Amino acid sequence: MPHQAQVDPQVNTFLDEHFLLTNETARSLYHEYASGLPIIDYHCHLPPDEIAGDKKFENITRVWLNGDHYKWRAMRTNGVPEKYITGDADDYDKFHSWAETVPYTMRNPLYHWTHLELKRYFDVDELLHEKSARSIYDHCSSLLHTPEYSVRGLLTKMNVEIVCTTDDPLDNLSEHAAIEADNCQIKVFPAFRPDKAILIQAAIFPDYIRKLGDLTGINTETFEGLIAALAKRAEYFHNRGCRLADHGLEQIYAADYSEADLDALIQKRLAGKELYDGEAILFMSAILTELGRLYHSLGWTQQFHLGALRNNSRRMMKTLGPDTGFDSIGDFSQARALGKFLDNLDVKDQLTKTILYNLNPGDNEVMATMIGNFNDGSFPGKMQFGSAWWFLDQLDGMEKQMNALSNMGLLSRFVGMLTDSRSFLSFPRHEYFRRLLCNMFGKDVEQGLLPHDLPWIGKIIADICYYNAKNYFGFGK
Amino acid sequence: MPHQAQVDPQVNTFLDEHFLLTNETARSLYHEYASGLPIIDYHCHLPPDEIAGDKKFENITRVWLNGDHYKWRAMRTNGVPEKYITGDADDYDKFHSWAETVPYTMRNPLYHWTHLELKRYFDVDELLHEKSARSIYDHCSSLLHTPEYSVRGLLTKMNVEIVCTTDDPLDNLSEHAAIEADNCQIKVFPAFRPDKAILIQAAIFPDYIRKLGDLTGINTETFEGLIAALAKRAEYFHNRGCRLADHGLEQIYAADYSEADLDALIQKRLAGKELYDGEAILFMSAILTELGRLYHSLGWTQQFHLGALRNNSRRMMKTLGPDTGFDSIGDFSQARALGKFLDNLDVKDQLTKTILYNLNPGDNEVMATMIGNFNDGSFPGKMQFGSAWWFLDQLDGMEKQMNALSNMGLLSRFVGMLTDSRSFLSFPRHEYFRRLLCNMFGKDVEQGLLPHDLPWIGKIIADICYYNAKNYFGFGK
Amino acid sequence: MPHQAQVDPQVNTFLDEHFLLTNETARSLYHEYASGLPIIDYHCHLPPDEIAGDKKFENITRVWLNGDHYKWRAMRTNGVPEKYITGDADDYDKFHSWAETVPYTMRNPLYHWTHLELKRYFDVDELLHEKSARSIYDHCSSLLHTPEYSVRGLLTKMNVEIVCTTDDPLDNLSEHAAIEADNCQIKVFPAFRPDKAILIQAAIFPDYIRKLGDLTGINTETFEGLIAALAKRAEYFHNRGCRLADHGLEQIYAADYSEADLDALIQKRLAGKELYDGEAILFMSAILTELGRLYHSLGWTQQFHLGALRNNSRRMMKTLGPDTGFDSIGDFSQARALGKFLDNLDVKDQLTKTILYNLNPGDNEVMATMIGNFNDGSFPGKMQFGSAWWFLDQLDGMEKQMNALSNMGLLSRFVGMLTDSRSFLSFPRHEYFRRLLCNMFGKDVEQGLLPHDLPWIGKIIADICYYNAKNYFGFGK
Repeated sequence: MPHQAQVDPQVNTFLDEHFLLTNETARSLYHEYASGLPIIDYHCHLPPDEIAGDKKFENITRVWLNGDHYKWRAMRTNGVPEKYITGDADDYDKFHSWAETVPYTMRNPLYHWTHLELKRYFDVDELLHEKSARSIYDHCSSLLHTPEYSVRGLLTKMNVEIVCTTDDPLDNLSEHAAIEADNCQIKVFPAFRPDKAILIQAAIFPDYIRKLGDLTGINTETFEGLIAALAKRAEYFHNRGCRLADHGLEQIYAADYSEADLDALIQKRLAGKELYDGEAILFMSAILTELGRLYHSLGWTQQFHLGALRNNSRRMMKTLGPDTGFDSIGDFSQARALGKFLDNLDVKDQLTKTILYNLNPGDNEVMATMIGNFNDGSFPGKMQFGSAWWFLDQLDGMEKQMNALSNMGLLSRFVGMLTDSRSFLSFPRHEYFRRLLCNMFGKDVEQGLLPHDLPWIGKIIADICYYNAKNYFGFGK
Repeated sequence: MPHQAQVDPQVNTFLDEHFLLTNETARSLYHEYASGLPIIDYHCHLPPDEIAGDKKFENITRVWLNGDHYKWRAMRTNGVPEKYITGDADDYDKFHSWAETVPYTMRNPLYHWTHLELKRYFDVDELLHEKSARSIYDHCSSLLHTPEYSVRGLLTKMNVEIVCTTDDPLDNLSEHAAIEADNCQIKVFPAFRPDKAILIQAAIFPDYIRKLGDLTGINTETFEGLIAALAKRAEYFHNRGCRLADHGLEQIYAADYSEADLDALIQKRLAGKELYDGEAILFMSAILTELGRLYHSLGWTQQFHLGALRNNSRRMMKTLGPDTGFDSIGDFSQARALGKFLDNLDVKDQLTKTILYNLNPGDNEVMATMIGNFNDGSFPGKMQFGSAWWFLDQLDGMEKQMNALSNMGLLSRFVGMLTDSRSFLSFPRHEYFRRLLCNMFGKDVEQGLLPHDLPWIGKIIADICYYNAKNYFGFGK
Repeated sequence: MPHQAQVDPQVNTFLDEHFLLTNETARSLYHEYASGLPIIDYHCHLPPDEIAGDKKFENITRVWLNGDHYKWRAMRTNGVPEKYITGDADDYDKFHSWAETVPYTMRNPLYHWTHLELKRYFDVDELLHEKSARSIYDHCSSLLHTPEYSVRGLLTKMNVEIVCTTDDPLDNLSEHAAIEADNCQIKVFPAFRPDKAILIQAAIFPDYIRKLGDLTGINTETFEGLIAALAKRAEYFHNRGCRLADHGLEQIYAADYSEADLDALIQKRLAGKELYDGEAILFMSAILTELGRLYHSLGWTQQFHLGALRNNSRRMMKTLGPDTGFDSIGDFSQARALGKFLDNLDVKDQLTKTILYNLNPGDNEVMATMIGNFNDGSFPGKMQFGSAWWFLDQLDGMEKQMNALSNMGLLSRFVGMLTDSRSFLSFPRHEYFRRLLCNMFGKDVEQGLLPHDLPWIGKIIADICYYNAKNYFGFGK
């Protein structure tokens, strides 16, 4: 078991109304222009079935620890045995282990997230540690049994207007339909994530391609058929409100390929054979390009999450599967292939609105400048450098992303924050982002780096927090 | 058309005398040691013909927007149609489009540059935005018609002592001769940029090599002849005051090559055939090495601008050509080949003074430490890590470059700032740099990181702003 | 000769008791929780023979300048001829040259180290420059002749509890035995650095492998024999208190190899033939994996120093040999092979405690997240992201390393600082680190980023400064 935390139970005064707002200008900007705006969470991993069913959670472990691999990593680092993380320990003991770990997370974003979430959802002012664990567990779990703490209640509490989930092309989106049929106040749109059709070397690929064929009634054993099947699914998604696609890749592939070769590659793979890296790159270059054209024809926004090195522990992959806390930041080359990929679409006037996310902060400037090559005046901020992703979703990471974007592009046209989260309790990250954003401008103003024009700066901030996203994605149109 | 800016016309108070100077020490350092020094702009892209002709500009669009691809990128990002950027819109409408964009550039260096330039050259205190566009346009354009606002007037106003342009080896430097013959107060020296003789895969190479042969009367179809021809041109440049060479490359090449192979490569290329990358690298490795020897024999400084990924948009390359705002930051490997290249020269005692510039800020530390390997005690600061380049030429970028140089080398021996600009209105960037530099030292002093020895720190600052460059390049010797 | 420093001799007030501590919280944290703790210097390059012999130094040049390639690089950069650095100039003239250089090192860590070392060891409050050189030289040299300024005296003065030297597997560790036999108050343990057995392409490899065979009586011409011989030496080291191994590599190698091929590779190399890079990588992948298993079986900690580009100047390598100031930061890919290497050990439950050090700060986030993949709950902070190394061992570098670790892992479990130094006068770097660490937490508290819980934060700080290392390495167990 980890060390015992030595923190006395005390009232948490560090998260007061001025949290992150270090001067008067920052405070005015936040409270007058940012805090009241609704949330458009245009990329997350919330489970649509839980929204459709308006799920209630039995206790705080279920809604807060289960599925949260950020917390799991911290607990493992702190020496907590797996039993108390993903194992068969009971829910309170898991919570207790987390509570013991929290004081050791100081300076990690988990420390802020933890207390901000306890405060915003549950009005808990106490710090979480070993001694406060029991009372906080009971308090929160009890609230979770009340009607306002159902899934939709939690979203409403946070002033969420729109959520985009992340969905497989094979998904029938019945949960989204159910939510819409319910006249749910929160709009919940699907987003199209065809990774399984792209990653041709993955074990699952042949089976996935056959299922796609079965579902669409299109022969997916040819490249043309595969694209047609994906287009049919995309149209299906489009009719259910989808306006975004997303892709998780180590890097973009943009090799020159001949369409004539692609069928043979697919058929080789469907026959159960492995592809060489060079072969896989040809296929992935082709399908990414065709998908890009498809998204352009639909007026969607395409997102690329680039640079993760995933599933590093085979031992834990076998036990727990993917997305369980064994991923890290890669150092792949990004610039040249990314530029070529975008140019291949742009040169034929088929480049749709695009958001680039990088996991290695060393790629910030590559991304911040790459978007500038393809902004063509057609729409303000057409090409976007996405908000700090995953490991970078913390104060330093967000500030660096916004500084790179500021210095090398137009921060004012940024579509802003998203949670990327699997948890219904993550929405205070929007508040966290907004406070940081206001503080960055506030400091600039008070240091004389910007004029003291709060209405204009307030407009920029409101745009970044809400209006840019609202105008950009075309939801409901 | 872009959104309408909501900024009220107001007096711009943010750019006052203390701009960027956050404490008393910084202010003393700037006003007592830096502000009055002349400018040596040892690397820029000013057109020598306009200096020779002492050109006057019809309006501010002509001198300020035309040719400025930084502004163009910002306008495209802001949704301005190309017509109002590089197209056939009239000069005022282009200015108006820029004025509408300016409020959206907050936190981008363009916001500071814009207002600093309007203030320093034209005494404009107002912020530029849609509503102030007309009066600022008229005011500035009217001043541009007066004698003090000719090209030489603008340089004199900024206390410019020396300018080095960037010139092709084929250039006859007649404009430089004309300027000198004129007894122009500002010294205007050429700099030797033989990229077209290096980039053997470029379409233009065969034609260029033949022209070089014609001009020099030397057979450039052999490697030896090519080098002899370039040496002849370098000597020509030297006699017209040139003391610097410059090279723009994705990365340095330092493959082992056999001189015996080089003639065949050149002849293959002159026959109109493409070279494989490996072949091109052999040739480029060879010519860079021979040029390095040449510069050493002349006592020149060689500059390398490394890491740009250029001309990413084929569509716009076709329409507008290079250097029009479609370049970005690459992520090429730099360290090993660069070390080998420098060592190959050093081991034969043929390594001349060298300045390394990187475009990817992730290479700052590679460059800051690489120079230390070849400082041999022969001249203080012989090897230089060059000032933050292009996308990095902003407060964060300059501060990071100087911090890397400080931590890993001697900032005190830095030759300092240059504009790298095509515009006669960019010289306040030296002021911007000097203010930042003084503020960095000022903060260190007031935080107790440095002793309160203003005369000594003032000497270091004056060295970086002026005297180091004056001593380093040997102009006029 | 370099410029003359223009600093007036003045009392150095910048290094007062609050040095680096910018607010009250930081001061309380440092003075109450950090300053009094002993030092565990778990990685350095101190010469054990000088500790065994309790060496006294004739003058300050001998103990402070000789062997310090950080100072040498700065002097070369400042234009000092090699004669006054590593040449035959007399000791005082070398000191004088260093004194002239010091004022030019402002903003380099050498400026702080220099004055902190003069103050902490010799009570010198004056700044070092040309005019103070003589008196400081005489004062310090005179103190060095007194008994308290022997090597052990210097260590005792700095409250050093444990030192780990860095030793070759062939070393008989007689000096360590002599120190222990002496009942020296400071514990001096060896650390195992088998680089010469790994770097198969190095000229020295064949000879080294034969010596290893001779020493152990094991045939090292087979891979199995080579590993057995290294295991025998490791056991020998273990019995003399060794608990750490260390490796200096450009990058980790983790190619798939067949054990069947390894003997042939070794024998090819022993026959004096060169290996191709691909062959060397197979061998290095294999030996690193086997060494990893060996360390796991011994309960050791393995360290990897990754990313240096060494010996860049052949000219100076020939004259002075390695580790003389001609190394720089490389830009090698690190993530994928490192992940695979660690996973290969982890999947067989053979991954021992590990510390990863990177030289390129662009790899900070790769390292900070990589460790999280293999923290398995077995020990708090089992996987460590090591303290800022070499060129990064300065305020910015240490702060970035700790911020990356904070944001992506648990700073609270960090084993903290080490000197990595060849000098007995480098121990104030622990104070420097501790002050910075306290200031980071102090600023966070006063900015409301952390609660004002000084006992808990003080505990975290004390852990990082001392207790984590004490618990982690298992010295004496």
